[in-house]
Amino acid sequence: MQTLAIYPGSFDPVTNGHLDILQRATMLFDRVVVAIAHNVNKQGLFTPDERADLLRTVIGDNDKVEVDVFEGLLIDYARRRGARSIVRGLRAVADFEYEFQLALMNRRLEPSVDTIFLMTDESNFYVSSSLVKEVARFDGDVSEFVPDAVREALLAKLAR
Amino acid sequence: MQTLAIYPGSFDPVTNGHLDILQRATMLFDRVVVAIAHNVNKQGLFTPDERADLLRTVIGDNDKVEVDVFEGLLIDYARRRGARSIVRGLRAVADFEYEFQLALMNRRLEPSVDTIFLMTDESNFYVSSSLVKEVARFDGDVSEFVPDAVREALLAKLAR
Amino acid sequence: MQTLAIYPGSFDPVTNGHLDILQRATMLFDRVVVAIAHNVNKQGLFTPDERADLLRTVIGDNDKVEVDVFEGLLIDYARRRGARSIVRGLRAVADFEYEFQLALMNRRLEPSVDTIFLMTDESNFYVSSSLVKEVARFDGDVSEFVPDAVREALLAKLAR
Amino acid sequence: MQTLAIYPGSFDPVTNGHLDILQRATMLFDRVVVAIAHNVNKQGLFTPDERADLLRTVIGDNDKVEVDVFEGLLIDYARRRGARSIVRGLRAVADFEYEFQLALMNRRLEPSVDTIFLMTDESNFYVSSSLVKEVARFDGDVSEFVPDAVREALLAKLAR
Amino acid sequence: MQTLAIYPGSFDPVTNGHLDILQRATMLFDRVVVAIAHNVNKQGLFTPDERADLLRTVIGDNDKVEVDVFEGLLIDYARRRGARSIVRGLRAVADFEYEFQLALMNRRLEPSVDTIFLMTDESNFYVSSSLVKEVARFDGDVSEFVPDAVREALLAKLAR
Amino acid sequence: MQTLAIYPGSFDPVTNGHLDILQRATMLFDRVVVAIAHNVNKQGLFTPDERADLLRTVIGDNDKVEVDVFEGLLIDYARRRGARSIVRGLRAVADFEYEFQLALMNRRLEPSVDTIFLMTDESNFYVSSSLVKEVARFDGDVSEFVPDAVREALLAKLAR
Repeated sequence: MQTLAIYPGSFDPVTNGHLDILQRATMLFDRVVVAIAHNVNKQGLFTPDERADLLRTVIGDNDKVEVDVFEGLLIDYARRRGARSIVRGLRAVADFEYEFQLALMNRRLEPSVDTIFLMTDESNFYVSSSLVKEVARFDGDVSEFVPDAVREALLAKLAR
Repeated sequence: MQTLAIYPGSFDPVTNGHLDILQRATMLFDRVVVAIAHNVNKQGLFTPDERADLLRTVIGDNDKVEVDVFEGLLIDYARRRGARSIVRGLRAVADFEYEFQLALMNRRLEPSVDTIFLMTDESNFYVSSSLVKEVARFDGDVSEFVPDAVREALLAKLAR
Repeated sequence: MQTLAIYPGSFDPVTNGHLDILQRATMLFDRVVVAIAHNVNKQGLFTPDERADLLRTVIGDNDKVEVDVFEGLLIDYARRRGARSIVRGLRAVADFEYEFQLALMNRRLEPSVDTIFLMTDESNFYVSSSLVKEVARFDGDVSEFVPDAVREALLAKLAR
Repeated sequence: MQTLAIYPGSFDPVTNGHLDILQRATMLFDRVVVAIAHNVNKQGLFTPDERADLLRTVIGDNDKVEVDVFEGLLIDYARRRGARSIVRGLRAVADFEYEFQLALMNRRLEPSVDTIFLMTDESNFYVSSSLVKEVARFDGDVSEFVPDAVREALLAKLAR
Repeated sequence: MQTLAIYPGSFDPVTNGHLDILQRATMLFDRVVVAIAHNVNKQGLFTPDERADLLRTVIGDNDKVEVDVFEGLLIDYARRRGARSIVRGLRAVADFEYEFQLALMNRRLEPSVDTIFLMTDESNFYVSSSLVKEVARFDGDVSEFVPDAVREALLAKLAR
Repeated sequence: MQTLAIYPGSFDPVTNGHLDILQRATMLFDRVVVAIAHNVNKQGLFTPDERADLLRTVIGDNDKVEVDVFEGLLIDYARRRGARSIVRGLRAVADFEYEFQLALMNRRLEPSVDTIFLMTDESNFYVSSSLVKEVARFDGDVSEFVPDAVREALLAKLAR
């Protein structure tokens, strides 16, 4: 039986840190769905569709990975997709506590789906989408933190 | 002399976690005032009066408990009510630090009122008003996290 | 009915931080038992009896406070004494987590006894028995951190 | 290809918390090796062989699980066994930081082996081998925290 | 060669905690620039110019200190000013993690500028601009937390 | 006037993480004393003199750096040497809290000496003397974590 995992997030935009977690998740599961949360109450810099396009561009041809956008509860989406696992990257203690509460809540809502955590590589320890956007907004160089296609999309978006 | 404690919070809406702390606080004090903070700058899902009604409904007849709404500084409210203690539930490290700073600030503003902390029961460890609202917003089942009356009020409110 | 609380610890030796928590606990309860844990596997600088004597000296005449030494599980001692509450001081996040686990474990062992936490005053934030002993061991001045009787006992003990 | 994971620890003795993590790990991997670290510098309550026997007793017949004892570096053991994953349970922030450092160190020593983390179920949040031993040592009831066979082994061992 | 450090922040408004860090920074460097971040997306209670005036008033004549307002990336500002060091005060674990990420990011963007941290004095441990504003907003007494000129400016601003 | 800082620690043995902090400290101060704490109650793998020799070897000729061994209270040593600053590297939250308490205690003992903190570089985030010793003990490769001379000393010491 094929194993399927969901790797959820905002990905606004995708960073090298996300790609590291994704690549490691594909070593664990037959198939990984990168699932972009579409939160109607929280506008991002990129639209969910733009984020999906960027993800598809930087991932390239990879049979093991699918990019999707979802609305509503993550746990419902995971159930609908037949996933048994949710993958999350951990970076810091602040992450840890929120993620802990979310993982426990999700297990109570649906015991058959478990959350597994991977530790962010030290080279991406301080790379978050929001820090990257802040650096790019003020013309800082983000080429070490995101793929080229994302850097260009940031420049184009912020130049408007 | 009767001992009086204030149990302050947003209670937007009350959860099983709040009720656990409240019940344990009534073992320590002769009388506990559940004090709903009315913050004019921060709109909730329920109005302060709706939150008070929900609290009164789920608490039922209990001579030891009073529900009230207050504006302004908590420490002034506590002083006005003649309380000697403020009760807070602790759930996580992030809570802890903010609560620590607040408790020290309040002691400096009014040394005669002390803050005491109770640890959230493990079964409510991940139950917060904001997570409950998010689950309810997407039609998730919240019956394990809040009393029935609150679940119904959430459904009615979010259906509008 | 009289309310009774246990304030447990090693008190090896008692510091100003302990005395601050004790004094605040006596505002909450009719009677507080300072309970010195006698751990046969862990030798202290002072014997449990010496610690009890120091505590009695610095507390002086106070009908609300009793000093005792106990062996075995704290929760059994609390039950035996008819206490409904255990009082603990919190100083830092590291404290917090260990205390959290202990409080939950104790509630599971005996639901009728609850643990309440008080935040250490900022002026005693960094005062621990072990730091005080280290400072005293190297002839540092500890007069700001412990009562005079404790300072003298430390000097006498370490001079041997 | 069969996926193999190592679940390392002291297991002195195994608790319900360990068994919860193990059971969830078997949902993720074809085969899980419970690997008891034999640290010659740190004597446990049970010998490594006794711990292995207890683990085998409480796990029972399960083709997916193997119990083993290892000496030396975990990462070398994982490599020797052909494992691609190390499984660890996370309980608290203090765990988190140490585990983070260890996971990064292990990735640097051997990039092909990744560490994945599962969050301890809330009902086992405060159950650790060391707390269980302390409770048992003072005749406290540990039947909610460990399987029966472990409880009996604890009683027998501590009665000596 | 003269050493120059940047002490950046919002200073909305300056508190006794900021002044303690600033005074200690002047012991380490020949010259310290208090650099008010002008964030066009985040309106403060005081305008950046008002904050600068308040800072100049409370600092008074001091050849070692300069007050300035900057826009854009802190690290670019530091480079432009020829600073080798950024000074930050640390108060709590939550601060710590965010500051850690920022410091690492800044070192990657510009290795020649290092961030150094000073621990907030215990008497200012819980004094933050936001808590001070909240207390002042509800007519609480802030005279222990900010200089007189700041207290008066708060009263004038909030009375409008 | 020359500025002098103390960089204290166990350095049992020195790692690349220590050398990174030391190198950055020399950018801030005219002279830095690497001060090896000689704790008679805690035996290390290397004697204090061996640690000093290793430090001198890996530091080489550097007029700005001195290596010394001290006994007793750090703050007394700093005073004796005429230092105005103590330098410490921060790696994690657990470090942070202990360091916070120590820094506050030291300021109370001697207000004229301040502690400044530098954040460990991400590439050394998980490199500690104790982890390095554990890896070396089991024949793991430590060449990425310590200088060559230290690696050889570890091999020689552990082969005995």
